[in-house]
Amino acid sequence: MPEPTENPAELDRADAAGTVALSCETFRNWGRWGENDVKGTLNFLDDAKRAEAAGLVRRGVSFSLSQSFDMNGPQLGWRRRTNPVHTMLDTGTDAERGSQGFPHGLGGADDVIAMPLQCSTQWDGLGHIFDRGFAWNGRRAGDVVTSDGDLVTGIERVASDLIGRGVLLDLGRFAGTGGELPDGYAITTDELEACIAAQGESSRVGRGDMVLVRTGRLARARREGWNGYAGGPSAGLSFTTAGWLYRTEIAAIATDTWGFEVRPNEFDDAFQPLHQVAIPNIGLTIGEMWDLDALAEDCAADGRYDFLLAAPPLPITGAVGSPVNPLALK
Amino acid sequence: MPEPTENPAELDRADAAGTVALSCETFRNWGRWGENDVKGTLNFLDDAKRAEAAGLVRRGVSFSLSQSFDMNGPQLGWRRRTNPVHTMLDTGTDAERGSQGFPHGLGGADDVIAMPLQCSTQWDGLGHIFDRGFAWNGRRAGDVVTSDGDLVTGIERVASDLIGRGVLLDLGRFAGTGGELPDGYAITTDELEACIAAQGESSRVGRGDMVLVRTGRLARARREGWNGYAGGPSAGLSFTTAGWLYRTEIAAIATDTWGFEVRPNEFDDAFQPLHQVAIPNIGLTIGEMWDLDALAEDCAADGRYDFLLAAPPLPITGAVGSPVNPLALK
Amino acid sequence: MPEPTENPAELDRADAAGTVALSCETFRNWGRWGENDVKGTLNFLDDAKRAEAAGLVRRGVSFSLSQSFDMNGPQLGWRRRTNPVHTMLDTGTDAERGSQGFPHGLGGADDVIAMPLQCSTQWDGLGHIFDRGFAWNGRRAGDVVTSDGDLVTGIERVASDLIGRGVLLDLGRFAGTGGELPDGYAITTDELEACIAAQGESSRVGRGDMVLVRTGRLARARREGWNGYAGGPSAGLSFTTAGWLYRTEIAAIATDTWGFEVRPNEFDDAFQPLHQVAIPNIGLTIGEMWDLDALAEDCAADGRYDFLLAAPPLPITGAVGSPVNPLALK
Amino acid sequence: MPEPTENPAELDRADAAGTVALSCETFRNWGRWGENDVKGTLNFLDDAKRAEAAGLVRRGVSFSLSQSFDMNGPQLGWRRRTNPVHTMLDTGTDAERGSQGFPHGLGGADDVIAMPLQCSTQWDGLGHIFDRGFAWNGRRAGDVVTSDGDLVTGIERVASDLIGRGVLLDLGRFAGTGGELPDGYAITTDELEACIAAQGESSRVGRGDMVLVRTGRLARARREGWNGYAGGPSAGLSFTTAGWLYRTEIAAIATDTWGFEVRPNEFDDAFQPLHQVAIPNIGLTIGEMWDLDALAEDCAADGRYDFLLAAPPLPITGAVGSPVNPLALK
Repeated sequence: MPEPTENPAELDRADAAGTVALSCETFRNWGRWGENDVKGTLNFLDDAKRAEAAGLVRRGVSFSLSQSFDMNGPQLGWRRRTNPVHTMLDTGTDAERGSQGFPHGLGGADDVIAMPLQCSTQWDGLGHIFDRGFAWNGRRAGDVVTSDGDLVTGIERVASDLIGRGVLLDLGRFAGTGGELPDGYAITTDELEACIAAQGESSRVGRGDMVLVRTGRLARARREGWNGYAGGPSAGLSFTTAGWLYRTEIAAIATDTWGFEVRPNEFDDAFQPLHQVAIPNIGLTIGEMWDLDALAEDCAADGRYDFLLAAPPLPITGAVGSPVNPLALK
Repeated sequence: MPEPTENPAELDRADAAGTVALSCETFRNWGRWGENDVKGTLNFLDDAKRAEAAGLVRRGVSFSLSQSFDMNGPQLGWRRRTNPVHTMLDTGTDAERGSQGFPHGLGGADDVIAMPLQCSTQWDGLGHIFDRGFAWNGRRAGDVVTSDGDLVTGIERVASDLIGRGVLLDLGRFAGTGGELPDGYAITTDELEACIAAQGESSRVGRGDMVLVRTGRLARARREGWNGYAGGPSAGLSFTTAGWLYRTEIAAIATDTWGFEVRPNEFDDAFQPLHQVAIPNIGLTIGEMWDLDALAEDCAADGRYDFLLAAPPLPITGAVGSPVNPLALK
Repeated sequence: MPEPTENPAELDRADAAGTVALSCETFRNWGRWGENDVKGTLNFLDDAKRAEAAGLVRRGVSFSLSQSFDMNGPQLGWRRRTNPVHTMLDTGTDAERGSQGFPHGLGGADDVIAMPLQCSTQWDGLGHIFDRGFAWNGRRAGDVVTSDGDLVTGIERVASDLIGRGVLLDLGRFAGTGGELPDGYAITTDELEACIAAQGESSRVGRGDMVLVRTGRLARARREGWNGYAGGPSAGLSFTTAGWLYRTEIAAIATDTWGFEVRPNEFDDAFQPLHQVAIPNIGLTIGEMWDLDALAEDCAADGRYDFLLAAPPLPITGAVGSPVNPLALK
Repeated sequence: MPEPTENPAELDRADAAGTVALSCETFRNWGRWGENDVKGTLNFLDDAKRAEAAGLVRRGVSFSLSQSFDMNGPQLGWRRRTNPVHTMLDTGTDAERGSQGFPHGLGGADDVIAMPLQCSTQWDGLGHIFDRGFAWNGRRAGDVVTSDGDLVTGIERVASDLIGRGVLLDLGRFAGTGGELPDGYAITTDELEACIAAQGESSRVGRGDMVLVRTGRLARARREGWNGYAGGPSAGLSFTTAGWLYRTEIAAIATDTWGFEVRPNEFDDAFQPLHQVAIPNIGLTIGEMWDLDALAEDCAADGRYDFLLAAPPLPITGAVGSPVNPLALK
């Protein structure tokens, strides 16, 4: 059996199906944590790692890594992904006017939301992507996610897991111009390792870590407008980093982009091919649309790139993804 | 001016309006953090407190304090508060059948949700409750929350704040039977203090802490069915604890009940009167419908009642509340 | 091959599968209007029938046959069927207070809704029910309705069809007590014919008509509360009327009940078995939860049971059902 | 008091407030149908008119005047107006795969929708627009529409009214090029009258009629893409037609445009000024985004421009607008 390459220049652009299949089979963790596993690489994130992560906190400074959730977001309606629609059930205007009917001067405001679970800062669950009809751990896709949601690996299964050591790899600053990589820039394994080396000891990446890769794409959107932020071209991980994602035994990874991997993808005809390796085969939990800019400023300033990361998904039963407000505590 | 009582037996049941007004005015923090303040008592939760909280972590055990978000929840539609409706945009069944049209064997699942922001485990924002037409810090309610949401104190303003020291006060275990207080049981200041004394040093409550009060109401619902969990009778804080909430300078408080305060309320004709003091006047952030049972078991076992609490709200722009998956890390 | 019975007493209660299969195959219209047909029995409703229907109008009195759409409806959340959640984007309170920002004194109100398409008065589309994996006209169910909706027989295909001659059969008045049939009452073919005979010439039913069967179930709900209106016991058509539905060549049928057919169903273990014959096999469009009471009063008063019926579904692309406000014009 | 002009050239572009106020006060029907009225000009549409309308039907040909309701619509999210999000609760794919759990081979599909009520073809209700803080019939806006919806003039109040005589005025064909008027073209009273004269006797407009004005804007959108169909420039009624709308005593009016009136509006700083006269003052029900193209073809072919129009709104309790599938029957 051939080995997947880690060099983008060696990819066969015309053979997406074959290349993807090879990586899927090479980096497959099916069965590694038993046939009933529902957590994938989050199994690498254990209590010892969480305790270690708490020990990283020095100043007690907290950073929210979430974009906002509102109609000003990047979504354009593609595949029914809209921006969140937030409406009020009760308002202060009504309360002030005295039309709410509560006793002793009480007034209230209340609200509802309708939104795609992946409209803004989010985690992809293990049921989000399938490989040729199969889901994480080798289950048939139709046995996992029906119209009733993800019956097996719903995001609620990892409600308490996503807190541990986070590591920021600021590729935008390391390899970009003005802190930003250009669209279509494929981050390679060598660059990930070089960035770690350049950033220093606090950036070492290993088993059970949650890695945050900053490309600068969101910083540009903030400056220039969305311009295809959701679904358009972007810097991101090269398809060839699949081996690195597998070997490092990281628990999760997140980026400041819509799609985590480079876009356009590195094949003539492909759609998010690295997802197909990472989620159903490696069993990796992926975060997207995170806002890493303020944290990156702080890391550059104090030279410490690791921190306690608390990124609890909403335990929506059967969800294949979840909005999240990740907090980095340094 | 008279002083509010801390003894429920002395409350004038017939004078909700006067009694509430007196507490509102006595325990009012308006202006304490400047006229532009949008955080209220979360100002008490500073970086030093967060660093201290991280230092509480020993074993690295994580507890999710969130109930699930699904149609099996307690909501009955009162004031349009329904349970969450989660639907799929794409499914594994479709992916397995090959009808999604993606290349190289990729398949996907995706989903949306429609839900009240306070349908399950949640934070009340400062714009959730008004006192006689006024919101937190003395603003007119109609200047704060319109049909466009909370323009001033939306939950997004505290996106990075809600991480710090949590303290569990297990009143159900301390004062109840089988770990549960009966409906209508009004927890008093004296009982809060006695519980702290009984639980020991790790339970001391002070400036900047987030206090979690367990009544056992959710444990009973889990055993017997909802039976009025959302909006019906329940144990909870007595109206007379307003002074304690004010004097302790806690940052936030949360309970395992729908409404935080005792129900039926302690007046002949009242609706959530302690909310009227706590939110718009004290400026206190309140959590409701938290699941404290597993954490309580652990605290009883190891005798340590404080921990790092990471409870980041979703930064929904203009929201007067937010669903949350709080994590306690011990 | 045996013949399906029209006598409920002869049904084999223990053999739902066999009995349903026999009726499905006996009363199957697959191919009758070509292999590309998307309208089923609505093909019977032609322009001549519509012109005839217009000629029935005498007084110009209009009856809305729709229940309301709001949170006070009968839905209990079963299979995520909630009542409609209607919220405001802009209000008069805000407009009056002057906070909307429009020029020259303009103010506005605007609103959104989230609702199951079959939460209140509705049409079932042809993609709503399947028979052993097959949809109307013999198509595979998975070729017709995916997560993207009904790709073939969506309700938008019949946007202009549902206007023609309506005939009210007031079984509640004919066979009930105080105008109401008891729960579990199975209306038979003989009773349908006897009701027609008793009501007189204006009640004759034939090709292309839309038949409205009133049981009185809604009248009782209006008097006593919902009490299982949505999904509980009810009078309705006997499974044995399948042949009548087929032979009469009616275009559509609607009732004042949740489920059109009698409940509990007439087999030991069944769920809506007449639907399985009527929708995917006969190709019949079915209306449910219609409010026929005021119309019935009028028909009883003037002895005329037919009228122009205008019941246009909302052309929601790919919908398998649609809310509707049917108008009867006499 | 001065008289409003019917000549656009005489409008004072700089004085929107004064000009609008003059028209509002001149064409005000407040009190005309009593102080409790909730229908406005729909009072002109009586049973005699409905009977007359039924008599117009010759061939029995039905035209749906509705655009589709789906994600391909024109909405861009302005003021939270999105396109409809239609999702499935159950699918044929699941049914075919056998994962639904129903007995005897039954399978089902079911669906939900979330949408602004004015996202596609719709009626504006009388609570949709306010004039300097006042709603239809002189009520204070905040007494009519709160966060609980329109408490007085909700669209459910006219559930049975909107069926009667429709008249198509094809201004696009009469005054345009290739059947289409250019953006910004303000249709005047003289042109409305000239169009009626040119189209002939079946186009006469009078008390109780529902007038449909075709501009050709939708035809162009269908050909060229939306390009600002929702909220951008368009042909439409001149502000100066307010008197004609008032004097003719029509029951309702609808157009094939987003906003009914010409855009950009005819003042330097204005937003939908004719709405401010028509809805809260005249009490006129307005339809927007209707698809009049197929009907217009037919009218041009047979020379008959009137027909039975059945346009029942969904009776959503408290709604200030409603989606509708209007049917024209000729």
